[in-house]
Parts: sequence; C-alpha cells; structure tokens
Amino acid sequence: MEFVVARVITELVVANRILANEDVVDAYGHVSVRHPEDPGRYLLSCSRSPQMVEAADIMEFTLDGNPARDDGRTPYLERFIHGAIYEARPDVMAVVHAHAEDVLPFGITPVPLRPVIHSGAFIGAEVPVWDIAERFGDRTNLLVTGMAQGRDLARCLARNNVALMRGHGFAAAARSLIDVVRMSVYLPRNARVQLAAMKLGKIKPLSRGEIDARLAGYEPHSPETQRAWQYWAIRAGCGEMLKDLA
Amino acid sequence: MEFVVARVITELVVANRILANEDVVDAYGHVSVRHPEDPGRYLLSCSRSPQMVEAADIMEFTLDGNPARDDGRTPYLERFIHGAIYEARPDVMAVVHAHAEDVLPFGITPVPLRPVIHSGAFIGAEVPVWDIAERFGDRTNLLVTGMAQGRDLARCLARNNVALMRGHGFAAAARSLIDVVRMSVYLPRNARVQLAAMKLGKIKPLSRGEIDARLAGYEPHSPETQRAWQYWAIRAGCGEMLKDLA
Amino acid sequence: MEFVVARVITELVVANRILANEDVVDAYGHVSVRHPEDPGRYLLSCSRSPQMVEAADIMEFTLDGNPARDDGRTPYLERFIHGAIYEARPDVMAVVHAHAEDVLPFGITPVPLRPVIHSGAFIGAEVPVWDIAERFGDRTNLLVTGMAQGRDLARCLARNNVALMRGHGFAAAARSLIDVVRMSVYLPRNARVQLAAMKLGKIKPLSRGEIDARLAGYEPHSPETQRAWQYWAIRAGCGEMLKDLA
Amino acid sequence: MEFVVARVITELVVANRILANEDVVDAYGHVSVRHPEDPGRYLLSCSRSPQMVEAADIMEFTLDGNPARDDGRTPYLERFIHGAIYEARPDVMAVVHAHAEDVLPFGITPVPLRPVIHSGAFIGAEVPVWDIAERFGDRTNLLVTGMAQGRDLARCLARNNVALMRGHGFAAAARSLIDVVRMSVYLPRNARVQLAAMKLGKIKPLSRGEIDARLAGYEPHSPETQRAWQYWAIRAGCGEMLKDLA
Repeated sequence: MEFVVARVITELVVANRILANEDVVDAYGHVSVRHPEDPGRYLLSCSRSPQMVEAADIMEFTLDGNPARDDGRTPYLERFIHGAIYEARPDVMAVVHAHAEDVLPFGITPVPLRPVIHSGAFIGAEVPVWDIAERFGDRTNLLVTGMAQGRDLARCLARNNVALMRGHGFAAAARSLIDVVRMSVYLPRNARVQLAAMKLGKIKPLSRGEIDARLAGYEPHSPETQRAWQYWAIRAGCGEMLKDLA
Repeated sequence: MEFVVARVITELVVANRILANEDVVDAYGHVSVRHPEDPGRYLLSCSRSPQMVEAADIMEFTLDGNPARDDGRTPYLERFIHGAIYEARPDVMAVVHAHAEDVLPFGITPVPLRPVIHSGAFIGAEVPVWDIAERFGDRTNLLVTGMAQGRDLARCLARNNVALMRGHGFAAAARSLIDVVRMSVYLPRNARVQLAAMKLGKIKPLSRGEIDARLAGYEPHSPETQRAWQYWAIRAGCGEMLKDLA
Repeated sequence: MEFVVARVITELVVANRILANEDVVDAYGHVSVRHPEDPGRYLLSCSRSPQMVEAADIMEFTLDGNPARDDGRTPYLERFIHGAIYEARPDVMAVVHAHAEDVLPFGITPVPLRPVIHSGAFIGAEVPVWDIAERFGDRTNLLVTGMAQGRDLARCLARNNVALMRGHGFAAAARSLIDVVRMSVYLPRNARVQLAAMKLGKIKPLSRGEIDARLAGYEPHSPETQRAWQYWAIRAGCGEMLKDLA
Repeated sequence: MEFVVARVITELVVANRILANEDVVDAYGHVSVRHPEDPGRYLLSCSRSPQMVEAADIMEFTLDGNPARDDGRTPYLERFIHGAIYEARPDVMAVVHAHAEDVLPFGITPVPLRPVIHSGAFIGAEVPVWDIAERFGDRTNLLVTGMAQGRDLARCLARNNVALMRGHGFAAAARSLIDVVRMSVYLPRNARVQLAAMKLGKIKPLSRGEIDARLAGYEPHSPETQRAWQYWAIRAGCGEMLKDLA
C-alpha cells in the first residue's frame, strides 16, 4: 500500500513539472490527485512553484482543505478548488487549477470556448464560465479561499471537464493524472486555434458525436497516451522519474 | 543495397528530429519515406514521439498498412495516411502527417489557405480541406484508422501537395524527404503570415506563374536546399548524423 | 547599515536579471530602488544591459539624476524617470522603465489598458498614457533626458501605478522591488489577454472593488509573493544570490 | 590595412550570428558590409546559414555580384541585392536581406508599415514595397537573381532605409553594420506592434520630427548603441569575438 502511494506521489511530481515546462502554470497554479487509498483525501504540494515541487513537498488534505497532519508547511491558498471538486464528483481522480494565458480571453467575454481540434475534444462540449462575483460580490480578490467558493465553482463545473474562472484561470477535472495533464496542455492550444479561426470567419467546432467518440476511445494506459506522457516528462527533465515507475 | 536502405533510414531519423525541433510535431505526428528499393512499401517509425525516434524504431509497411515483419512493435494508429497516399501517387516519395497549430484555423473555417510567401510556394496553388465527416459521418474520433479513410483523404489530396484535415491537422506529400520536411516547416509560417495579413486588408497571394516557377526551380540537392536541411538538422542536434551521410 | 545597502543592491541585481529573463527589458530598460537609508537618493545600474548587471554596476543618484559620486561610469540617459517619480511620490520605493513589446499597442491607440486578470490587478484601475509631444513638441527623440520631462511624466502618472509612454514604453512605480517586478512581469500578460479578448467581443474588466481587494491583500513578504520572486530568480539563474539573502 | 579588413570580417561574423539568434534570418537571409578599403567591393558570406558563418566563409564581391577571386565557393543566389544597393547609395555601408516573418504581412497588403515605436524610428518615415512582378512579370520565382532585378529594387528603395519585397522579405540599408543589425532586429518588433495596435483602433505613428530627431541623434559608437550590440552578441554566443575587437 505504501508503494501505491509513493508511486502516485512520483506521478504527481512529474505532473507538476510537465505543467510548468509546458507553460500551463508559472509560479502559480497547482495539480492534485485523489488519495489512491482514501477517496476522502487528496494529495497536493505545499506552497511551491510547480517547477520545483519534489516528493517531500506533497501534503495530504481532507476534502474540506485541512491538512491531514499539521506539520507547519504552508498550503496553497486556493486548495479548496480541489477538495470541492472531489467532493462533488466521485468520478474525478485529478484536478488542475491554472492561469494559462491563452485561455483567459474566453473568461472575460461572452464567446464560449468550444472544442475545435481533436486534441481539444477532452474539454467536452460545454465549458462553463464561473464568475465569482455572481454569488460573492464584486469586492473579492478573485481567489477561491474557502469551501463555500470552492463548492460554488464545483456547482458551475457540474458534469463538465473544465470550468473557466472569470478574470482568473480555469479548473480542470479528470479521471486520472495523465488525463488532466493532457487536457490542460491542449486546452490553451484549442483556445488559440479557436481565437485565430474566429478572425477568419465562421468556425466549425467538433460535433457532439465526435466529442463523445474521442472521450469514449480515450485510455490513459494506451500506447498513444503514454507516448505523450513520456514525451512531456522527458522535455521537463523527468525522464528518470518515469523509469522509476516502469 | 543494404547501404541505400540504411542511408534512407538515417535521413528519416533526421527528418523526425527536425520536425519535432521546429514544432511541426509534438508527441503526435509522423513522417514516412517510400522504400528505396520496393515502391510497394514504406518506412515509418513505430509508435514513438518523433523527437525520440532512432534507427531501430523504423518499421517497414506494405501500402495497406501492415507491418512487413510482425515483431510485436506497436505501429502508429494513423499509418494508413501514408500508405494510401503512396498508393494513389507514384510520384510521392515522402509523407508527413502533423497537427501544427498554426495550420489548424484554416481547417475549421471556409477561408482557403493560399501560398502568400515564396517559402510557402511549395504547398501549391490549391490546398483542399478534407472533412472526415463528409463520408464517414459525424461520430468518428477524427483519426484515419483504416485504408478506407486513408484513401478518401488521398482522393481529396488528389494532385496537390498538402491537404488540411478538418479539426485535426494536415497531410503533406512530396518527391523527397527534404522536400516534405521543408514544406512542413514553412506551411505554418505561411499560415501565420496569411492570417496576420488578412487582419490588415486584402491580401495578394503568389500568382500561379510564381508558384509554378518556384516548384520548377526546386532541387533537393541544390546548395540552397541542403543549406536548410543542414541548418535544421544542426538545430535539432543531428549534425553528426548528417556527417555520416556525407 | 552597510549590510542593509548591500542586501538591497543584491535584490536590485536579481530584479535586473529577472526582468531580462522574462522579456520585460532587452538591452534597454532599467529598474531602480530608493536608497534604504536616504530617501533623497536612489540606486540604479550604470549603462549596462539588465541581463549583465552586477553589484559593482550599481550607482547612487540624487533625485535630480546626478551621480552621488562621479567615478566616470556612464549613467543611463533616461535615469530622470526614476528620480522624478521618487520626488513626486514618497510612497514609491522602486521604479521600472521598460519597452515590453506587448504593452506598446496601448500607448499608440485611444483604447485604455485595463486590468482584466487577477494577476494584472496591480496595475490599478487607471493606466494613463503620457505623450511627450503634448508638452515638449513633436520633434523630441521620445526619450526622457532631463528632469523637466521626468517631472511631466510623474505628473501624468499621478497616484497611479503605471503610466504608458506613447510610442516608447512604460513607467511602473511600487512600494517595493518585488512589487514592481511582479507588476512589470504581469503587465504585458494583462495587455495580451485584453488585446485577444477584444477581438472576441465586449470584455469584462476587473471591478473597482476587486482591484482594491487585490491591492489591499498584497504583501511583499507573503509566501505567495516570495514564491514568485524565487521562481523568477531561479529561472534567471540567480538562485544562489537569493540564498545569500536568506 | 589587413588589420582593418580582418576586424570588419569579425564584425560581419558577429552580425550574422546575431541576426540568426534574434530570428531575423533562418537558413536564408544574409548580411553584407562594404569593403572598408575599396568602396567598389563588398564582403558577404558564401552560401551558408548565417548561424554557422565563420570568418573563413566571407567572400569579396565586386558591385555587380562577381566574386573578386573565383575559388569555387558557392555564393548566395541573391547577392545582387547587396551590390545594387551599394552601387546606388554611396552612403550605405551595410545591407541586410531577410524574410523575418512578422514583416511579411505588410508586403502583401496595401497597409503601409510605419514607425510606431521609438526603436522602430530607424526604418524611416516611408517604407516602400517592391513588387518584382511590376517590372519582371508574374512568372518569376520571386528571387533577385541578377543585377537588373537588384537595381530595380534599389530604385524602389531610393533614399529610404528599408524596402519590403512582396511575398518575400525586406532589404535594409544603413551606414554601419551595427545600424543595419539594430534596424533589422527592431523592424519585426515595430511591425508586430503596428499590427496589434491596428486591431485596437486608430494608431498614432511617430511624427516626422520625431523620426528625424532619432535618426539625427543616433551614433554607432555611443554607449547606448554599443550596449545593444554587446547584448545581442553575448546572447548569440559571440562574447569572445567582441573581446577580440576591443
């Protein structure tokens, strides 16, 4: 059992480094995974830039955002995003919150983000926009700093895979770490392609059937998915860590 | 004869690395070459990210996409793109399939991609868009996973050099590896320039006569072409491999 | 006391390197800090590219831009921007002047730059544009080469955090080096997001209450702020310098 | 005298490397300098990618494009651009021809490129567009492959500093290598800023008086100019070569 947790922690470190190297996160943004042996807990780094996260930085939280063991390390202010989504969505095993720049325009305009390329299909047919001001007024600092805000965001996310956060970023939820990393890497690309295409003329997004077919056909352990995971990890300088997992 | 094949395999490895380093491919996308001694076969890596392809990864396929020798290696799902084009076009010696981001907007809008810069002339006067949904319905996962789809794409490509694939990427075909790499590197640049120029006003693409003059004047072994091949290879860290070919 | 000055000089070197590495400055642009023991003076490098600034390059200036000790080193031509702002704004402890490319479009069009993302909130609700031609005519070389021009710019800046300079760049003022670096890094990002979003449709900027909440909640020594400072410093190759400060 | 030529050749190598590192040229594009002791000749690399040019690659040409000594090295096809400009403009000491991507949109639309930022002032108030098809028909390969085409381009350039070449690139002329490198680095930046600003609204370019003031105040040996030259050279890995020149 210890082995299973250690393995997941290594994967979480790799996920942190990939997201940093692929410019999904900078000093800010974070990725978590549900505890493999206790669905009422999740694993998330303490307050560190994802690029520098190591196994020793990973903390364990209950779904309400309290550290399982209070050892004095500072947690991320916005950890409530993670717990609230795990609480509302038993199917979700991994969550990313980030401010990837190219996604942000779609959070401050009425134009909906749509999957327009096959690698973007995983964001799903609907990408709702959560505006913190709707329920919490227009005097917040935009951060999700408590469970009430986290739960409101999770409500907006509903059964979707991604919710944009107005003037702030996005939250992505998936059934595995590899899934959520892949979705987070291709989400900004899909946004850039949609933005560029809208300057050219009327766009044709993926059909509902195509989105469903892609989601249905996706397998975290298929050679195609592992190929990307390995590629991103090697680019991020984590090739050796992957070998430890093999 | 063995020597000829070994040489082509080394060139194919260099092509893989160049396309990765120039951001034409990431973990996905692939490049093939027709077998130098058997026009009914082509050489293509097994399922690996192009950046990591080595000579030992190259597999041999018959045009219908079956491995010449079944040695248990996993092939790319979309290898049928390559075989179907070689089948339909005896003049084609090398094929690239990729998802280069800046080309994608032209696949989801009605605006045709046109050659607007001299280095983009090689894409040819017409760049058709293949929409998999036209013949295979709107419930596919957009991938070309069999010969029927590959042949339909090849039909759409017809005598042209590039076909865009709606919501997915492009297929490029040329008479040599160097040609197809060069075309694939400059295709996204041409797309970016056209997109930017269309925001300024009415654009003037290359004339038919200019496109023909450039295609007619192009020589894979000219000093100008070799200069680019060498430049890209050195940037991709393959300078030594080129020396082995000299 | 010497220790305090030495520490601030090290921080100023780190700030120079960060701004270079994050593409806020290139060979041009500069960052200063008010002297920690004499509010009538400020510290600024001699005429060097920020990427190469070392502790030995830092000079001390009186607010009117004269070197405290004339040792023959060449100062920046535009040092007057710094002194004039320190003179007008006792609350300001650090100043950046730069030409970050993505900010420039907002200096040559009538569209006001607005904070649209939470990390951009620190630029404040109003970002005035200073046009040197208004008071100094349309035959200047656009540079701020004397106190009269510096004071006019400071007047335009008024109580705001950033002023754009038409056809030239921006000046940012903050109460600490970390603040002004953070603001300068996220200012171009905010500009890019606003520009992209305006192509999509009507944008929703941060509300006044949100901007105030973020400014009120900001703490240079909070774990969140230090996290970014450390991240940028490590990326810029200054990790060791930070350790000397710890 | 030999010393003077050797020094200029080293500077020309540095210029090649800078232009490659700053993405002004790729495998294509070239920079020349008028021979310091014979105004009827110029120095230019043989057919090599600028990033790899070394002193031994520099060839000497008469203004009509013939090698001063025929030693079998292959010259650039488009060397005639350089000679034709030196022939028409005795004030010009250095020439760049390149295809920098962000300049290209202004060559295929009727919108004139204008200096809009102070670092772009050196391109001058007017940037004509040369269309090879006007005099040589619409069946050329767009390259300047003889003196007749070079002279027609030089005629279009006239007394200006830069001419765009439709569907192809630009030619820049200046009174020193440092000048022409600086202009070539900031030309694409000016183009990007103008393009972005035009999406926002009506733009305010530099006034004629401002352009003149900047051109008049520019000094290749000023600390400000040397600072940029040194910065670009160090980024391009040529710091040591500069020391040899000091």
